[in-house]
Amino acid sequence: MFVSLVRTENYRHILPRLDGRVAVVSMNRPERRNALSEEHMRELTDFLKAAGGSGEVSVVVLKGEGPAFCAGHDLSEMVDRDISFYRHLFDVCTELMETIQAIPQPVIAQVHGMATAAGCQLVATCDLAVASEEARFATPGVKIGLFCSTPMVALSRAVGRKKAMEMLLTGEPISAREALAVGLVNRVVPAERLEEETRALAAKIAEASAFTVGIGKQAFYRQLEMPQPQAYAYAKEVMSLNATAADAQEGMCAFLEKRPPRWRHR
Amino acid sequence: MFVSLVRTENYRHILPRLDGRVAVVSMNRPERRNALSEEHMRELTDFLKAAGGSGEVSVVVLKGEGPAFCAGHDLSEMVDRDISFYRHLFDVCTELMETIQAIPQPVIAQVHGMATAAGCQLVATCDLAVASEEARFATPGVKIGLFCSTPMVALSRAVGRKKAMEMLLTGEPISAREALAVGLVNRVVPAERLEEETRALAAKIAEASAFTVGIGKQAFYRQLEMPQPQAYAYAKEVMSLNATAADAQEGMCAFLEKRPPRWRHR
Amino acid sequence: MFVSLVRTENYRHILPRLDGRVAVVSMNRPERRNALSEEHMRELTDFLKAAGGSGEVSVVVLKGEGPAFCAGHDLSEMVDRDISFYRHLFDVCTELMETIQAIPQPVIAQVHGMATAAGCQLVATCDLAVASEEARFATPGVKIGLFCSTPMVALSRAVGRKKAMEMLLTGEPISAREALAVGLVNRVVPAERLEEETRALAAKIAEASAFTVGIGKQAFYRQLEMPQPQAYAYAKEVMSLNATAADAQEGMCAFLEKRPPRWRHR
Repeated sequence: MFVSLVRTENYRHILPRLDGRVAVVSMNRPERRNALSEEHMRELTDFLKAAGGSGEVSVVVLKGEGPAFCAGHDLSEMVDRDISFYRHLFDVCTELMETIQAIPQPVIAQVHGMATAAGCQLVATCDLAVASEEARFATPGVKIGLFCSTPMVALSRAVGRKKAMEMLLTGEPISAREALAVGLVNRVVPAERLEEETRALAAKIAEASAFTVGIGKQAFYRQLEMPQPQAYAYAKEVMSLNATAADAQEGMCAFLEKRPPRWRHR
Repeated sequence: MFVSLVRTENYRHILPRLDGRVAVVSMNRPERRNALSEEHMRELTDFLKAAGGSGEVSVVVLKGEGPAFCAGHDLSEMVDRDISFYRHLFDVCTELMETIQAIPQPVIAQVHGMATAAGCQLVATCDLAVASEEARFATPGVKIGLFCSTPMVALSRAVGRKKAMEMLLTGEPISAREALAVGLVNRVVPAERLEEETRALAAKIAEASAFTVGIGKQAFYRQLEMPQPQAYAYAKEVMSLNATAADAQEGMCAFLEKRPPRWRHR
Repeated sequence: MFVSLVRTENYRHILPRLDGRVAVVSMNRPERRNALSEEHMRELTDFLKAAGGSGEVSVVVLKGEGPAFCAGHDLSEMVDRDISFYRHLFDVCTELMETIQAIPQPVIAQVHGMATAAGCQLVATCDLAVASEEARFATPGVKIGLFCSTPMVALSRAVGRKKAMEMLLTGEPISAREALAVGLVNRVVPAERLEEETRALAAKIAEASAFTVGIGKQAFYRQLEMPQPQAYAYAKEVMSLNATAADAQEGMCAFLEKRPPRWRHR
């Protein structure tokens, strides 16, 4: 049962909540600027997988407590370790990022403050992102001798080459407005309206058939990796199967009859 | 002969016209918001293939009659069919999209109103697009339980990931100005100047050697699918062959002699 | 020794200079608008390879003398040649472009005027670009019957499809502001501040460990060619190795101790 998984006592580093069909998970290490310790990342991944497998969740919102959205990896656990430690840490981090895109529900980043390194990668990885005017985004690893190589994978797929290179090579933060202009976030709103606007976007998506949304999200990332002719061959098959499903038949009939649809699969 | 193919009596759903070296084809199902029934799509594909094979055409303009540019598939023919019907329908649709990019002449979408679902895909697929300030763009399949999976292939290759996901997951329309900002269209002009500006763009391209334009358009889509080293190997060979052609020799001489070129291949 | 390579007397067409850890190379054929003759390209490639192999260089700046940044190939040497000549010329040109991305140091284009054809390709290829408000960018090959097929490889990877197609099909120049909006350049500044702003960007990057920057730049282009799962597998290994290096250990310690880092590898 998903409801058992939103019990706060099951987690040390995150605050999970279910608000209607929207699962809200907040990174809760404010004194560490929500740094992604290994345990923190594991809890986020566990939560996302549980949400992903739940029929009660239509959308996930990822946010952070305290002044920062997320400061990336926890440097205090990264000094003077051997390579097997680093390999393991980046495995755990990559599993978190891949889980965000693998679960059927859209994941929306609600970014109220600084998002740096793997924190910026979280924003680039989420399906959608809403930012406060006060949010900032940076990949500053270059400044500490550790290039943001894994964040780069997500960043360079979300924004253009020149901008990704600039962020990676200078380590300097960009503003929320600039993040919007280059395609790293979807919306920028005043800080006091961030929660409300993120929820409105989540609610809009939650109106749709979760079955349909899940088909679409999964197909999105798969077809992007394919040459266009293969992408069409794949998308045609996905859409044909989707069309035979109950929710598509109901949706088309409702549209033609000018009435609201009643989804079988929320 | 291409001229025979622009005879209006050969088509039920489209209005073809030849205006100098610019072939203009208008979707003409205004009462159905130019919905893409199977027959409508076949006529468009046939027309494009005929234009593609004609030496008399330098540019194609795709427009629509009535209030909308194109509302996508015709839902009235899509309810309660079996999967082989859907597969067939999306095959016909994909053939239309692939034909737009396969013919040697640039295809310009002239978008005066709403372009939704496969209609938005047409805009994303055309080589260039000019939009009226009143145009709108949406992939609203998610609202009727049928995710815009095939439109997604074109949309996600024309605009960034976050914006494509937002359009696909919310189904909400974006304005012409936003479509310009995210790279879905090339120009936004007042409604009363849409025809004139589209023709000016077509005329500009029609000044060039159609032979050269055809080489370039074909190479554009091919090299985009390749890793960069292969893309260079391919583009070098294309450009070397292009350089030996009469129109390139004439063009270079004309430039050096500061006179207008006289193309062998219009 | 790199210092010997910045001796002006070693080159006919370029002006090399070493300013601290920033190597500045200026295309110096002002009377030909810095056209890329074969010899000119070879000198640029030789200089870049020498800089690439030098431990004294952290950043390279590429600029041009005279009214234009670079007018592309030298048409006066391109008329009435056989295909083996063209193949050879585009091989030399592609080697220049690939060298820009292959050397470990970031290469910044400092663009003060027109950048056309292979000159526009140089801008698209450099890791970063700073432009004067007076700069213009075009791929005008279509106007002389020789489509900008090799510039297209770089251009279509730097900007969106619709904009790349528009530049390639019309041959018309875009302004520096538009180049910024579409992602072809990183910054636009008044002409009188171009040198200063480009140097400030170079100096910012030169503060970092050159070892770390070199790792990051190389990984950037490699991972971009990979499907995302492979890109993550590769980036995880790169970042794990990077983390074990002296400069990363020093950088993390310096950050935790709130002091400036002392790089082993400048």
